[in-house]
Amino acid sequence: MDYRSSGVDIDAGNEVVRRIKRLAKSTHTPAVLSDIGSFGGLFRAPEGMQEPVLVASADGVGTKLKVAFLTGKHDTIGQDLVNHCVNDILVQGAEPLFFLDYLATGRLSPDVAASIVEGIAIACRENGCALLGGETAEMPGFYQDGEYDLAGFIVGAVDKARIINGSRLTPGDALIGIPSSGLHTNGYSLARRIVFEHLALTASDVVPELQTDGQRVTVGDALLTPHRSYLPIIRPLLGTNTIKGMAHITGGGITDNLPRILPEGTSARIDRQAWEVPALFQWLVEAGHVPLEDAYRTFNMGIGLIVACAAADLERVLASLQAAGEHDARVIGEIQRGDGTVVYRD
Amino acid sequence: MDYRSSGVDIDAGNEVVRRIKRLAKSTHTPAVLSDIGSFGGLFRAPEGMQEPVLVASADGVGTKLKVAFLTGKHDTIGQDLVNHCVNDILVQGAEPLFFLDYLATGRLSPDVAASIVEGIAIACRENGCALLGGETAEMPGFYQDGEYDLAGFIVGAVDKARIINGSRLTPGDALIGIPSSGLHTNGYSLARRIVFEHLALTASDVVPELQTDGQRVTVGDALLTPHRSYLPIIRPLLGTNTIKGMAHITGGGITDNLPRILPEGTSARIDRQAWEVPALFQWLVEAGHVPLEDAYRTFNMGIGLIVACAAADLERVLASLQAAGEHDARVIGEIQRGDGTVVYRD
Repeated sequence: MDYRSSGVDIDAGNEVVRRIKRLAKSTHTPAVLSDIGSFGGLFRAPEGMQEPVLVASADGVGTKLKVAFLTGKHDTIGQDLVNHCVNDILVQGAEPLFFLDYLATGRLSPDVAASIVEGIAIACRENGCALLGGETAEMPGFYQDGEYDLAGFIVGAVDKARIINGSRLTPGDALIGIPSSGLHTNGYSLARRIVFEHLALTASDVVPELQTDGQRVTVGDALLTPHRSYLPIIRPLLGTNTIKGMAHITGGGITDNLPRILPEGTSARIDRQAWEVPALFQWLVEAGHVPLEDAYRTFNMGIGLIVACAAADLERVLASLQAAGEHDARVIGEIQRGDGTVVYRD
Repeated sequence: MDYRSSGVDIDAGNEVVRRIKRLAKSTHTPAVLSDIGSFGGLFRAPEGMQEPVLVASADGVGTKLKVAFLTGKHDTIGQDLVNHCVNDILVQGAEPLFFLDYLATGRLSPDVAASIVEGIAIACRENGCALLGGETAEMPGFYQDGEYDLAGFIVGAVDKARIINGSRLTPGDALIGIPSSGLHTNGYSLARRIVFEHLALTASDVVPELQTDGQRVTVGDALLTPHRSYLPIIRPLLGTNTIKGMAHITGGGITDNLPRILPEGTSARIDRQAWEVPALFQWLVEAGHVPLEDAYRTFNMGIGLIVACAAADLERVLASLQAAGEHDARVIGEIQRGDGTVVYRD
C-alpha cells in the first residue's frame, strides 16, 4: 500500500506547485525575500512609517464556489478572494503587503488548481500585493471530485496615526455609498437557492431582467462577477485624514457591517432612495420573495463599501473618488444619535 | 425565502463569534491593538530588530480531521494546526507573532466550533502567539453534517541577519534528529486506509502493539496525538548562530523535506539505525505492507524536526536541547557532497 493508492498523488501535487511558483513569482515585490517552496515566506517589514501596525485578515469565498463548479470557470474566484481580503484591511486604512492562500480539494486537477491561482495572481498584481505562499491540500474523501474550498490570508500595514476605525464619528457625518460590482462574495446560499432551486434555472440560461445595454447576460456570468477591490479609488484618500470610518459590506449586509464602526451613542441612517438597487438584486429579491429586512442583512444591495467623513470634507472626498475613476459614489445617509444600529429610511 | 431557510444561521454564527472572541482574547499579547470583530486584526510591528523580516505560512491539518470526526474529539486538532504553523516558520529562525484561522463547516455546531478554537487558543498561548482573527464559514451543501475543514495562517518575525535557511551548510555538518510526538499532521490518508479499511479497526479499539508502559492505547488516541511545537526547545538556540539549517518533517517525509534546505552540490546522509522507529510507525508499515521508500516519503517515521549544525557546534547544540528538556535528540546523519537528495544508510 503506498500513498498514491490512498488517493494522494505527490507527483501531481509537485506539478501544481511548479505552476503555482511561476504564478506567485509574477506577483513578487522587492520586499519578498524568499522563493515559494521555503517553509515560510519571507517579507521585509514595512519601512518609512513612524509606528507601523500590521493589519491581517482571513477569509473564504463561501458558496460562490458552487457557481464556479457549475460553470467550470475557475479563474475569477481567486480575484474574489484577494479583493475581499484587500477591502477588509483597507477599511482600517491599511495597504496590502502580502497574501497567502489555502486551497483544499478532493482530486487535484493541475489545470483547475493553476486556473484558481491564476485568478489570485491577477488580483495580487492589481493590488500590488505579493503572493508569498500557500498550501495546496489534497484531501481524498473530503471534497467531491472537481470541488474545492479556498481561503485567503492577507497582511497589510498602516502607520498607527493613520488607522481608520470609526472612533471619531459624530452625528452629522456623511455616509458615502460606493457601488458593488455584484453579489461580491456574500449571500450565495440564498441566491443559489432562488436561482437554481426555486426558479430552476441553469448557469447558462439568459435572464432578460439582467440584460444591460442590450447585452445578453447568463445566470452564471451575473453570479460570478468578481468582487471588486476598492484600493485604487480609496488609496488617494489614505493619509489625508478625511476618512473617519469605512465599512466593507460583506456577510450580514449593510445591517450587520455598518454597526461595526459606529461609536457608542451613534447609529447610521441609510436613505434607501439614495441609490437604485441594481437589477440583479431586484430580480433575486422579487423571485425569492425575500423580505426587505432579510435582503439588506444578506446581500450588499448594490453598495459594497461605505465611507464616512465629516460633512465639511464631503466635497473633497467625492472629488477624490471621482478623480480616481469612481463616478457613482454618492451620499446615502448620515451618522445620527442612536443605539449602534442601522436605521433605514425609505 | 430568507437566509436561515437557505441553511445559514446568522444568529448561531454570532453565538460562535462571541465564544471565539473570549478564547481569542485569552491569547492576546500587548502587541495586539484591536478586538476580534474589527474587519482586520491590528498588531504592532516587531520592534528592537535591526532589519525585521516577517515570516508567514499557511497550512491545514489534512485528513487528520477525519480522525477527529470519528472520535468526536475536537479540542486537539487546533493544537495540531497552530504547532504545525509555528514549526514551519521556526525552521527559518522566526518566533511567532500572530495567528489567524479559517474554519469551514456544513452545519455550524457552536459547541464543536468552540472546542476547535479552544485547541487553537491553547496552542497559541503555549507559543506566545496571538490569535488575531479568523473566519468561520458556514457553507451548506459543502461539508457533510458534523464535518469541517480547518486552515491556519501564521506570521512571525526574525532579524534579517538571523534568518536560518541552510545556505551555509557544508559537507561534514551534523544532522540532529528530534523526535516527533506521533504522525503529526501528515500521512493520514494512508494511515486511515490501513487502520480503518485494511485492518477494519474502529477508533476505540485497543491495539496491543501500541501499548506503552502497560497503558492501553486506542487507535483514536494514537492517531490524534497532537503535533508538537519545537519552539520551546529551539528558542534558546535562536540567535546563537549555531543552527545552520532546520527542516520540519511534514508531507513528503524526510525524503522530500530535508532537500528543501540543501545547498547546491550537497546531499544528506541519514543513518536509519540511529533511532528506533516508534511502534506506531512500525505497526502501520507492517500492517499496510508499505514499502520502506514510501514510508519515508509519507510518514515522519519518528523524526519531526532535523537540525543541522557544524560538527564543532554539535555538543553545544545537544547540550542546549537537553537543557531545554529534549532528551532524545541525537545525530542521525550528516551533510555530504551530492545532488540535493536524501541518501539513506541502513
